[in-house]
Amino acid sequence: MKISARNLLKGKIIKITKGAVNAEVTIELPGGAQIVSIITNASVENLHLAEGKDAYAVVKASNVMIAVD
Amino acid sequence: MKISARNLLKGKIIKITKGAVNAEVTIELPGGAQIVSIITNASVENLHLAEGKDAYAVVKASNVMIAVD
Amino acid sequence: MKISARNLLKGKIIKITKGAVNAEVTIELPGGAQIVSIITNASVENLHLAEGKDAYAVVKASNVMIAVD
Amino acid sequence: MKISARNLLKGKIIKITKGAVNAEVTIELPGGAQIVSIITNASVENLHLAEGKDAYAVVKASNVMIAVD
Amino acid sequence: MKISARNLLKGKIIKITKGAVNAEVTIELPGGAQIVSIITNASVENLHLAEGKDAYAVVKASNVMIAVD
Amino acid sequence: MKISARNLLKGKIIKITKGAVNAEVTIELPGGAQIVSIITNASVENLHLAEGKDAYAVVKASNVMIAVD
Repeated sequence: MKISARNLLKGKIIKITKGAVNAEVTIELPGGAQIVSIITNASVENLHLAEGKDAYAVVKASNVMIAVD
Repeated sequence: MKISARNLLKGKIIKITKGAVNAEVTIELPGGAQIVSIITNASVENLHLAEGKDAYAVVKASNVMIAVD
Repeated sequence: MKISARNLLKGKIIKITKGAVNAEVTIELPGGAQIVSIITNASVENLHLAEGKDAYAVVKASNVMIAVD
Repeated sequence: MKISARNLLKGKIIKITKGAVNAEVTIELPGGAQIVSIITNASVENLHLAEGKDAYAVVKASNVMIAVD
Repeated sequence: MKISARNLLKGKIIKITKGAVNAEVTIELPGGAQIVSIITNASVENLHLAEGKDAYAVVKASNVMIAVD
Repeated sequence: MKISARNLLKGKIIKITKGAVNAEVTIELPGGAQIVSIITNASVENLHLAEGKDAYAVVKASNVMIAVD
C-alpha cells in the first residue's frame, strides 16, 4: 500500500508506553533524533509493534508546522 | 516561547511553493531526510521564511502515525 | 506497508480538483457515501491518482469526531 | 448547527471503551464498514453516547489521506 | 446537531480569502481576538459564509497545543 | 521561538486532568471562554504546566472548522 502522506521517516522503535486507550511510541531516526507518536493500543497490537523493531513515522504535510528561533 | 508539541526537527528550508492561500515548505534535516509542510502564505511572510534559512518542523505527537513494512 | 491509522475505507475516485498546492479528491464508497480529502498535488502525482481508479480513504482515529442529531 | 467538515457518515455506535481521559468510540456504517474515533470522555458524556445509538462520524477533509494498493 | 469537538468559540466572520481549493476564514471573538481557519471553498458555499455573519470556530481538543513564555 | 500556527490565544490554566499517557488541560481566556486541550503527560511536565499559570492555546489554522446555527 502506498499512502499520500508526504512524510515517512524510517527508524527504530525505542519505547512504547501503553495507557488505557492510547499508547505513546517513540522512534529513533538514524541521525539520533527522536519522533514521538500517539496511536491507539489496538494499532500497537495490530502492527505487532515492539521495542527494537524498525518502523516509519508517518505525518501528513498539513500537520507539520514551521518554527524559527 | 516553549510549545507542547513533542516533535521539533531542526533543518534548513530548501523549497517554498506558494499557492493562493497555502504554501508548501520543504525542510531538509541534517541527515538528508526531507520534511514537507503545508502552512498558510501569511505564516511564510510572518516568519520571514526563505530558502536557505534554518527552521524547525514541528509536529504534535497525536498527528504522527506508525507504519511497518 | 501497514499503517497504524485505524480507518481505511475502500472506494473509487470520482473527482479530482487541483489547486496551486493542494488538490481535493473525492472517493465514493460501495454504499454510495462520498469521502472528500485534501492532499497535496504532489501526492496526486506520486500515487498516479485518477478518476475511476480504486483507492482508500485513510483517517487516524484521533481525527474522527462524533455528532448526534 | 451546520459544520464545515465535509465528511459526515451516519451509523450506529457499536462499542465504547473509556480510558482516564480519552474514549474510543466505534461506529458501524450501514454497509458494515466500521469507523473508529478517539474523543474525550467528557464528550461521550455531554452527547450521551451509548452503544446502540445512532451517531455520525465527522471528519475534516484535510484529515483524510488517500492510499492505493 | 451536537458535535464532540470540545471547543466552540462564537464570533463574527470578518474576512474570507478564497483560493483554488481552500479558503481562509477569519472570525473575530467578542473580546477582539481573531481565529483563522482553513476550510474548503465548497464549505464556504455550503454554509453560505460571508463577512459580517455570525459563526463558530470549532476545534477538536486533540488539535490544541499549549505554549508558555 | 516563533511558530507558523496562526492561532495563539493567551489565558490562564484552570484545570489539568492526567491520564496514563495523555492529559486534558483547560485554559480560560480573558473573556471567560474556555479552551480544552489534549496533550501528552510528558508535555505537561516539560513545560511545568500547573493550574493558575498563564499559557497559550495554540491551534494550526487547518485544524479549525467553522459552524453556523
